[in-house]
Amino acid sequence: MTEEVNSPSPSRRSVIGWGGVGLALGAAAAGGTAVVLTRSTDEDAPETAASGGAAVPFHGPHQAGIATAVPDRLHFAAFDVTTKDRAELVQLLKDWTAAAARLTAGHAVGEGAYGGQPEAPPDDTGEALGLKPSRLTLTIGFGPSLFDGRFGLKDKRPAALVDLPKFPGDNLDAARSGGDLCVQACADDPQVAVHAIRNLARIGFGKVAVRWSQLGFGKTSSTTPDAQTPRNLFGFKDGTRNIAGTDDASLDKHVWASEKDGAAWMAGGSYLVARRIRMNIETWDRTSLQEQEDVFGRDKGEGAAVGKSKEHDEPLLKAMLPTSHVRLAHPDSNSGARMLRRGYSFTDGTDGLGRLDAGLFFLAYQRDARDAFIPVQRNLARSDALNEYIQHVGSAHFAVPPGVRDKDDWWGRALFS
Amino acid sequence: MTEEVNSPSPSRRSVIGWGGVGLALGAAAAGGTAVVLTRSTDEDAPETAASGGAAVPFHGPHQAGIATAVPDRLHFAAFDVTTKDRAELVQLLKDWTAAAARLTAGHAVGEGAYGGQPEAPPDDTGEALGLKPSRLTLTIGFGPSLFDGRFGLKDKRPAALVDLPKFPGDNLDAARSGGDLCVQACADDPQVAVHAIRNLARIGFGKVAVRWSQLGFGKTSSTTPDAQTPRNLFGFKDGTRNIAGTDDASLDKHVWASEKDGAAWMAGGSYLVARRIRMNIETWDRTSLQEQEDVFGRDKGEGAAVGKSKEHDEPLLKAMLPTSHVRLAHPDSNSGARMLRRGYSFTDGTDGLGRLDAGLFFLAYQRDARDAFIPVQRNLARSDALNEYIQHVGSAHFAVPPGVRDKDDWWGRALFS
Repeated sequence: MTEEVNSPSPSRRSVIGWGGVGLALGAAAAGGTAVVLTRSTDEDAPETAASGGAAVPFHGPHQAGIATAVPDRLHFAAFDVTTKDRAELVQLLKDWTAAAARLTAGHAVGEGAYGGQPEAPPDDTGEALGLKPSRLTLTIGFGPSLFDGRFGLKDKRPAALVDLPKFPGDNLDAARSGGDLCVQACADDPQVAVHAIRNLARIGFGKVAVRWSQLGFGKTSSTTPDAQTPRNLFGFKDGTRNIAGTDDASLDKHVWASEKDGAAWMAGGSYLVARRIRMNIETWDRTSLQEQEDVFGRDKGEGAAVGKSKEHDEPLLKAMLPTSHVRLAHPDSNSGARMLRRGYSFTDGTDGLGRLDAGLFFLAYQRDARDAFIPVQRNLARSDALNEYIQHVGSAHFAVPPGVRDKDDWWGRALFS
Repeated sequence: MTEEVNSPSPSRRSVIGWGGVGLALGAAAAGGTAVVLTRSTDEDAPETAASGGAAVPFHGPHQAGIATAVPDRLHFAAFDVTTKDRAELVQLLKDWTAAAARLTAGHAVGEGAYGGQPEAPPDDTGEALGLKPSRLTLTIGFGPSLFDGRFGLKDKRPAALVDLPKFPGDNLDAARSGGDLCVQACADDPQVAVHAIRNLARIGFGKVAVRWSQLGFGKTSSTTPDAQTPRNLFGFKDGTRNIAGTDDASLDKHVWASEKDGAAWMAGGSYLVARRIRMNIETWDRTSLQEQEDVFGRDKGEGAAVGKSKEHDEPLLKAMLPTSHVRLAHPDSNSGARMLRRGYSFTDGTDGLGRLDAGLFFLAYQRDARDAFIPVQRNLARSDALNEYIQHVGSAHFAVPPGVRDKDDWWGRALFS
């Protein structure tokens, strides 16, 4: 399903206003569905080097940023809606959609950073001028609290959009959890991702406020499983068996919501679970290699499961310790449950005790968390040897609507219509 | 002075132990002084794309990470020394030097992440296995507090290593200021920079503790001024007139300390001022284009000074508002004072009011801050129109010793001998 297109990569500076953009978007839409455009087929090469300039089409049946290839940098923001006016919220979603189409194509917002009236603030904040599209994707989600009645959406809440249960060991910070809306920005260049979130927040001024945000500096999962699996901050490859962005059958079975699932407006969408997982780096770093390998159930070098020689060899679960992470997270230990993972490592400086505030910002897309994240996490929270070294400190659940079909469509149209 | 060398770029995984490294270091040392090795001469191309794999030589008369080209990612850490034992501190500096030589060459620390004894913690934490050297540089500095008498260094404190004065408008957080030691890690890949700081912190366990650290996601200055000047988070090009890494005369005059400056052990070193400058992004974003351009004294698009058409045209200071940033920071307004700037944009999530905790992590190298940062900042703090939109919230000053000459030399040898 992945299609290689040498997309035009206009400098963000070169196009001002809407004139040229209709064409660019038209060309991108004509290129096919919301699959990634990379400039290189060499997935083992650093993705930043191979494809820093490419644009990912914004329009399609699914939102980009789920099954599309995972660029190396993330800025994720959760918002509270502060307006009480449904029409104002709808207008914001339309404005965001228009801005997202421009930003992901590598253009500035509106009239640009220096093309408007001198006596008005520029439409775009300007720090991405001259930077390439950088495979930027912007993916919106709706949290359970959006359906609380303020906007007449109570009846539209999907049954799958449950409040996540409290798991053993959870130590959640409310200030880093939840949110009425979320936007996930992935890009090869962090400045491009940060610029996008900032400009959306700015467009939303007076209607939404950032509740929390998270930067990720290195992806820990890939949707191109033939590539080198990235390592997490414990130094291990994890998520080896991720769902591939080209595996339509698995995507349909495990990732994309269907009309039959109950909420018609979510057909072609997905459910995102976000967890901020703090890693006790210093404790881990004083643990023996043997213990580390036992905890994961893999060898550290190759990433092969216990008793196997290659990373992608199918693990023999019975040969592994019952508390090992690979065994407990494996689909065979969870009635076949699978998720598409797009997590990122984070480092947010140092805590008050001089320890690195670092870990994994876990992002997983699934058709229904009740059949995927929730049972898997119950299993892990109960028994995983890794629990000695990690703590879940933030949590959120979002209904991620289907893609924006064309330039008359907008984020959430089916929900609000 | 810049020399292009196609350096060997071993995978971090491929070399374990010290055997192969002596050769690699020897080759690098033979390549010349501490100038950058890039794989491409195209400075306008994204540096991550052009040169993600290259290694920068560790040995030379000056530390790398000052005049060498500026990669796009930063992890900076300040440490408190917790041991009271001078010999232990000296041994740590030797251990750090050995580790830094390996890390910057693209190798794992010691026996690697999975090459030692299974019953012992691995020497390396492993998350950079398989990643390229990524132009990693590691640059050490010594803060004023290191010379307080604990280690018999009182007489060695350079006169230039003053306690920075309090400037008008300063709102410094002690927890983000100062430090006995600092290490600046710059790299094309943030995972490589974070890995390096983490492993140095780990080697220092029980002897030093991280006091504060800062991640930077996008450089705001360049030491290759013919390249595109990067933009700061206000969307402007600043630091257009930075000192070039190839301009030996200016480096000798403004950046490198000399024996004649008083502290013989600092000859070939430099003085680093680090300031965490919070930008009031939301206020700025509601300011008119005209006001923004007046504040900087440049146009936003091209970056040209008032009345000029090109970014690099020499500004006519008298034509500019007396409060404009360019005019106040210009050497002609500061008795010719110049610094080599290597600052980075940062975003550390959101503050309690939903505002982006973002800004500029200002890093400037100079021969003597009393002739450079201090008078320039006095001038700016008094009059700069930009002060309405920024606040200095962290501050530190470090004596950055000369380079490590060869494999028998170590960070700070001249200071402790």
